[in-house]
Amino acid sequence: MTLSMHTRICDLFGIRYPLVLAGMAGIANMAPLVSAVSAAGGLGTLGAAYLKPDEIRAVVRDIRQLTDRPFAVNLFAPGKPDDYENFDIVNRQLDGIRRSLGVPHPAQGEIRTPDLFERQFDVLLEEQVRILSLTFGLLPERHSQRAKAAGMRVIATATTVDEAIQAEQAGCDAVVAQGSEAGGHRGTFDTTLRRMGTNIGTMALVPQTADAVHIPVIAAGGLMDGRGLAASLILGASGVQMGTRFLTSVESGAHPAYKRALLGSTEESTVLTDAFSGRPARGIRNAFISEWEAGGLDPLPFPTQNTLTRDIRSAAARQNDPEHMALWAGQGTRLLTEHLAAAEIVRQTIEEARRLLG
Amino acid sequence: MTLSMHTRICDLFGIRYPLVLAGMAGIANMAPLVSAVSAAGGLGTLGAAYLKPDEIRAVVRDIRQLTDRPFAVNLFAPGKPDDYENFDIVNRQLDGIRRSLGVPHPAQGEIRTPDLFERQFDVLLEEQVRILSLTFGLLPERHSQRAKAAGMRVIATATTVDEAIQAEQAGCDAVVAQGSEAGGHRGTFDTTLRRMGTNIGTMALVPQTADAVHIPVIAAGGLMDGRGLAASLILGASGVQMGTRFLTSVESGAHPAYKRALLGSTEESTVLTDAFSGRPARGIRNAFISEWEAGGLDPLPFPTQNTLTRDIRSAAARQNDPEHMALWAGQGTRLLTEHLAAAEIVRQTIEEARRLLG
Repeated sequence: MTLSMHTRICDLFGIRYPLVLAGMAGIANMAPLVSAVSAAGGLGTLGAAYLKPDEIRAVVRDIRQLTDRPFAVNLFAPGKPDDYENFDIVNRQLDGIRRSLGVPHPAQGEIRTPDLFERQFDVLLEEQVRILSLTFGLLPERHSQRAKAAGMRVIATATTVDEAIQAEQAGCDAVVAQGSEAGGHRGTFDTTLRRMGTNIGTMALVPQTADAVHIPVIAAGGLMDGRGLAASLILGASGVQMGTRFLTSVESGAHPAYKRALLGSTEESTVLTDAFSGRPARGIRNAFISEWEAGGLDPLPFPTQNTLTRDIRSAAARQNDPEHMALWAGQGTRLLTEHLAAAEIVRQTIEEARRLLG
Repeated sequence: MTLSMHTRICDLFGIRYPLVLAGMAGIANMAPLVSAVSAAGGLGTLGAAYLKPDEIRAVVRDIRQLTDRPFAVNLFAPGKPDDYENFDIVNRQLDGIRRSLGVPHPAQGEIRTPDLFERQFDVLLEEQVRILSLTFGLLPERHSQRAKAAGMRVIATATTVDEAIQAEQAGCDAVVAQGSEAGGHRGTFDTTLRRMGTNIGTMALVPQTADAVHIPVIAAGGLMDGRGLAASLILGASGVQMGTRFLTSVESGAHPAYKRALLGSTEESTVLTDAFSGRPARGIRNAFISEWEAGGLDPLPFPTQNTLTRDIRSAAARQNDPEHMALWAGQGTRLLTEHLAAAEIVRQTIEEARRLLG
């Protein structure tokens, strides 16, 4: 049997190669990277979860200026409202870090996470975005029906076989099987009983998920090159999603200090932490994480902790201080390259996978 | 490029297929399983770490009665002597579990871990065992020289790229890259700074290790079938090591209650714990782990905690009580099968991998 680069997700999304750019929320100026991956034959994904509806509209239009190829937009599934239990103690705990960066102490009244989902979703329909990817859960039934009626394809993110089965039963068109190697937030639907997510390794998660669902499975987590793509297809996936790999590409809007930290990191550099957002995510251990852990507190639940630490992360970025930014990264960072265009990463990955699969 | 089933480890070990049985210490009556894997063309491994020297000699002779094919013996690298700091508090903490099983409370003087390594190693040389695999570190220089002089092949177990590089520099002939999916103990050399080991996913660890060393890399962690073998070869490995996969085979000496627990488990069933031995290991969460965690204590260091909990585990096995046994398992257990002979597992795995690699 010879595995082809033309898989089910190529037909499903109208793309040439089974390679999806992860939707990386919080990275600046995503249009060049998203459009470059799509133009090269993959599926670019705009990580729009933190963008205001009008910002999404603007970036979607920017991407369309740059390519006429399909792309996706990633949102967080709607979650819980802000939770201020223990707010004062957590807020005070962050003051040490704030002082070192010159960030003022906020009052509780200043920390309000806007509930963007309804309007974000409306904008995707208004702009006729064709592919929506979801993290942290599934679409509410009403939104699922509206997406279907609009002919939108929906990709869910699963970190267990059961989550993938739930996604299939909810009518999702494809599911990302996100292994423990992955950088950034875990897609785990419910972290109340699993504070650090489920953390099933990609090698174990992909074949078990592929056996359990009929919709295409997109492997994610630690995949960095044609070896990872070919291995994922062998395991039963219909494609791969790569995030970290593109963060050091020419078109990436990642902060220069973040890029340097990625290029200087190894498979041992990252930890799982909920210190930044209240939800578990994999990032390079830095002073923020260590200082937070030394305090011994639980963070506020997502999204409140995320909103509470935003000023700190923004100040760190302005001050080129990677020790207080969220340096999301997977476990494959020895394989990162510098100065490569995203299209070249796509081309090399596909060519290497083709060669390996003979 | 078409990847062959005849890889570098086939020549190195004189085996037909690049499939290694993990050395699983603590499983009863290993000769039938070890010899079956070797006779089928793989490399059986006797997990001898807890065996007394004369027991090793006897099982090695049993294996040779059953097959004339190569096999390996796995030992723990020599470690630290017993450490009794906090002994009384940890010992008392275990009394609740002991009471439920009718196990007497031991005095400190009864908990003595025999230092077996010197004599175990001598027996391997005396019995002319050809392949030694090591976990928890490397051979001391003197033993390494004796192994070399005897023409013994040495396999190390690494959980990071740096550990694999250390193994190569120490003259090891091959290295197992053990990913986080793996069941049982982490091979991590030094867990003092990494209490739960390093936990790099197999998909990320294997290609980065293969890039970094010249000796053959054997992938381990979550590998259960021909998909896992083919994917590992694609990632740059020269073969795979599978442990959990063989625990439910016909020849396995695993306790029937342990086999049932394995067959009823999923990728979500396991946790990393140092409750049983003082060293991190992946096993199915059961009452022992939960009761231990509820106490909030750190275990004694390995090997003292292991020796201290032995009576509890033995009693649980006698009472068919899987809730107080160490149910080591990887994250691929949905792929387990019942009633298959080890030779059939080897045959199916090789055939499937061949078909996938075209």
